[in-house]
Amino acid sequence: MPVYKAPVEDTLFVLKDVLGIEKFNNLPGFADATGDMVDAIVGEAAKLAEEVLFPVNLSGDQEGCTRHDDGSVTTPKGFKEAYQTYREGGWIGLSVPEEFGGQGLPYVLHTAVGEYMSSANMALTMYPGLTSGAIAAILVHGSDEQKSTYLPKMVEGTWTGTMNLTEPHCGTDLGMLRTKAAPQPDGSYKISGQKIFISAGEHDMSENIIHLVLARIEGAPEGTKGISLFIVPKFILNADGTPGTRNGVSCGAIEHKMGIHGNATCVLNYDEATGYLIGAENKGLAAMFVMMNEARLGVGLQGLAISETAYQNAANYARERIQGRALTGPKAPDKKADPIIVHADIRRALLQMRAINEAGRAFSLYSALQSDIAHRSADPAERQKADDILSIMTPVLKGVMTDRGFENAVAAQQVYGGHGYIEEHGMSQYVRDARIAMIYEGANGVQAMDLVGRKLAANGGRAVMAVFKEIGDFCEENRADERLAPFTKALKKGLNDLQAATMWFMQNAMAKPDNAGAGATDYMHLFGLVIQGYMWGRTVKAVHALQDAGDSRTEFLANKLVTARFFMERLMPETALRKARIETGCDTVMALDAAAF
Amino acid sequence: MPVYKAPVEDTLFVLKDVLGIEKFNNLPGFADATGDMVDAIVGEAAKLAEEVLFPVNLSGDQEGCTRHDDGSVTTPKGFKEAYQTYREGGWIGLSVPEEFGGQGLPYVLHTAVGEYMSSANMALTMYPGLTSGAIAAILVHGSDEQKSTYLPKMVEGTWTGTMNLTEPHCGTDLGMLRTKAAPQPDGSYKISGQKIFISAGEHDMSENIIHLVLARIEGAPEGTKGISLFIVPKFILNADGTPGTRNGVSCGAIEHKMGIHGNATCVLNYDEATGYLIGAENKGLAAMFVMMNEARLGVGLQGLAISETAYQNAANYARERIQGRALTGPKAPDKKADPIIVHADIRRALLQMRAINEAGRAFSLYSALQSDIAHRSADPAERQKADDILSIMTPVLKGVMTDRGFENAVAAQQVYGGHGYIEEHGMSQYVRDARIAMIYEGANGVQAMDLVGRKLAANGGRAVMAVFKEIGDFCEENRADERLAPFTKALKKGLNDLQAATMWFMQNAMAKPDNAGAGATDYMHLFGLVIQGYMWGRTVKAVHALQDAGDSRTEFLANKLVTARFFMERLMPETALRKARIETGCDTVMALDAAAF
Repeated sequence: MPVYKAPVEDTLFVLKDVLGIEKFNNLPGFADATGDMVDAIVGEAAKLAEEVLFPVNLSGDQEGCTRHDDGSVTTPKGFKEAYQTYREGGWIGLSVPEEFGGQGLPYVLHTAVGEYMSSANMALTMYPGLTSGAIAAILVHGSDEQKSTYLPKMVEGTWTGTMNLTEPHCGTDLGMLRTKAAPQPDGSYKISGQKIFISAGEHDMSENIIHLVLARIEGAPEGTKGISLFIVPKFILNADGTPGTRNGVSCGAIEHKMGIHGNATCVLNYDEATGYLIGAENKGLAAMFVMMNEARLGVGLQGLAISETAYQNAANYARERIQGRALTGPKAPDKKADPIIVHADIRRALLQMRAINEAGRAFSLYSALQSDIAHRSADPAERQKADDILSIMTPVLKGVMTDRGFENAVAAQQVYGGHGYIEEHGMSQYVRDARIAMIYEGANGVQAMDLVGRKLAANGGRAVMAVFKEIGDFCEENRADERLAPFTKALKKGLNDLQAATMWFMQNAMAKPDNAGAGATDYMHLFGLVIQGYMWGRTVKAVHALQDAGDSRTEFLANKLVTARFFMERLMPETALRKARIETGCDTVMALDAAAF
Repeated sequence: MPVYKAPVEDTLFVLKDVLGIEKFNNLPGFADATGDMVDAIVGEAAKLAEEVLFPVNLSGDQEGCTRHDDGSVTTPKGFKEAYQTYREGGWIGLSVPEEFGGQGLPYVLHTAVGEYMSSANMALTMYPGLTSGAIAAILVHGSDEQKSTYLPKMVEGTWTGTMNLTEPHCGTDLGMLRTKAAPQPDGSYKISGQKIFISAGEHDMSENIIHLVLARIEGAPEGTKGISLFIVPKFILNADGTPGTRNGVSCGAIEHKMGIHGNATCVLNYDEATGYLIGAENKGLAAMFVMMNEARLGVGLQGLAISETAYQNAANYARERIQGRALTGPKAPDKKADPIIVHADIRRALLQMRAINEAGRAFSLYSALQSDIAHRSADPAERQKADDILSIMTPVLKGVMTDRGFENAVAAQQVYGGHGYIEEHGMSQYVRDARIAMIYEGANGVQAMDLVGRKLAANGGRAVMAVFKEIGDFCEENRADERLAPFTKALKKGLNDLQAATMWFMQNAMAKPDNAGAGATDYMHLFGLVIQGYMWGRTVKAVHALQDAGDSRTEFLANKLVTARFFMERLMPETALRKARIETGCDTVMALDAAAF
């Protein structure tokens, strides 16, 4: 049976020692996040994840969701109760403004605890996760009335939320969507059409479900310029704000999926359902992108989350499973064989997971902190810079951490040998669950294209320059630090590759855009390596400072340095390969006729 | 719904034009394999795979196998009938000597058609696949009586075979196995113990099942030196050779696995089952390795097989799914959107699958041809050289083609976006099925250790030197060929990296064996890249010769050159990264305490 223990020590180290969140106490909400408060919140989240969410994870996968003939959906045994505990803990509103029932704490804290929830039970955590996305969209684009009507109930989790984008014939290309919205005399709309792949679309855990739905108002322009966003509650509210009449939206089927069986992925049929416009007419995509960007950070975090729990289980198994002897002679001579963790190849696999997870944790929290600064700073220049950096981090975190998270889950499963292939050990679930994170909220190829096609060039490259400057400055400022030199040197080499690849796009992709497409995925991963290398650089610097100050976490800090060294030795050099691939351009890639594939 | 079309044109090209099997017509069986005969066999195999095996693949995954209370197992609907057709076609005995009912044709042909069978239905093909392995072991180590008793029925497929190695506490480390064999006065043994993960261990498709079982004769030495191999038939044979009394072996459970649901993976309980020693007492491991080596080549082939069918489906989907527009402007202006195959990032993914599949096909058939030479040549020096080369190819093919095959299945699934995650499209099955090939018949880490720990050093490095010489000679002989130069130059660079890494092991792993372990997986993949690069080099040379001779396969040959170029540009450069990782050694990898992971 799998186990899970939230990495509290590492989270607190990243928040306090690497990112230094106490330095941001001029931002609203941060002053409340004192050291003790952070300890308490992270500790409570760990308990919830370990003791409430995790125990129903494997059983939830095996049972899955059930749709009944009346279109209602039952979640797996124990999900409803676990969700109630989650909800009652106030976790959904952790970083939501207090006026809507939230606690107004930093988003970076919401992200820190979110990792634990997804590690413990990704399928279950998606229900409140989608609610958070819907809350974010209503907060930014909703009217005051909409905010006061929907947010408090969503924040307390008695109502949940969904995102309705995809239709059978359109996913990435939302310009083709057909769901219709017919204006009604009372200012509402009648929504009709079919949406697919709607996570948490129907279930038995909340009193109401607030669907955010993209649709086209009759007579609206074709393409993405004619899309509007609507609030469509499962139960239309009574005058007193309580759920009333059942609305014309129903679950036609739930999908038979590879994983996340505990989350109901629904086909939702809208049949003249009552909907309310949110934001401006035909500006639905912009409103949806608020949810989408938040969701992308959340999905990147899922990549880390599954990778972390898969790693923990692989490490345990490698310590317990005895098989064969160490190449250097028996390490457990009293036993029939040595634990397989004596083997360098097993350790290599474990360290690779670990190096990516620890960098990924710093990367996620660093990105969340940029979101806090972008939303809460009083200084417009600081806000803009943080928003620029976040615009780059979003596709990189989503694409890289989900690709790597899946790879790590596969590598963790491999440590189990044949036992990893058997469902009862839980490693198969991690692989199957992690797989979706590479696909939804924009498949990773779409993230790569967003990065090279949109984010790089935006505002004359302002955002990417800000990132390069921050990392370059870090290397420069620490040039004289001899202990740090092996790390900054490797990082600088990676940064040089990244800058050269960027320059190559500037020079070769304007006239020939397929040169960007052919290198997009390699570029996203090259970027990911450099960001992770930067996180390791900052980590090592923090470790040295703590060691110099005689910090008592002796072993924890020493292990950090080993893992950092592993990253720089084994993973960072991949930047040269990625750059070389990018520079081969698109000619070969575009040479075949479509029919020849 | 998924589709499958056997790549007949490519198979024939590799057999005839790249490997030139007609040049081997001095070997027994090869003279019968004339050009027309090969065409006919490959064509018939394609029909069987496409029309008989493939139609029950997805349904077989969804239904799975069922164990009944009496321990009997039912295979999915249609499996029994499909297997009967397979069996009646004489496919199991294609390369088995005629005296045992086979056709005595080259093993390379058996391999060529085996790819199609696994592509079409891997779970089903495992039943006859395990039979082939058991046949090989009995052929080499069985007594004349055992051969005449068991082989004809197994060759005709009315009886199937299994391999029984793993026990709950031992997989890789067979020295720990506990299954006991008690000698009986009549020369037989009573076998008692439990075996797990026994593929095709119990089912309803054959009249008898011939289990080959590793067990320890009472009083035998501890460890691997006390293991013997036994034939344990499900039904003990009557004096006339027909199946008689039910033997004391029963299926205690079937595993709930991630994939290959159509194959019954059994817990087999042996309770004083009658068994017959095969080969010498305490020499069971050597006998089992005959099966194992054949099985490893077969598993490598499964990696290719799933990758090929996944690729075909991804290419079809990419041609059909319309979504968005090409970066260079609409390519299908009459439609609402362009097919996604217009995107460079999609093409890159498809070409990567294709470049690995085509190289993998040549690699598999090249290895099978070495097996033919090793077993059939009249020249001892030629036999030894082929056997040496095969000893290297076996772990590399198994490890690399299954790792890459899985990666490709994942990449193919990714092309489908959200639809790839839904079981009905079949892409999830390919990923789940491909996953086991990285694990069974020796997990890929074990293959890597076999390569660096055993195969490299054997006979003073004779085998690896033979491989390096063959590839080095190819580069040297073609130095003056300007058209080939871009390919041989890239190949030579890869070979240099491989030789340098080999030298590094020679110099650094003797005194410090963990240096070998820490680099083993990278070395296996480095080796795989060079072999695949060599296959591409020979392919390009064959293409040029055919083009010069005015061969009519114009488009096929032109596409080969594009794919070869892709391989050399994008995949071959990975050798430098692999070498760099190897050379970082084991110090960082071994630094952490086991408890620190």
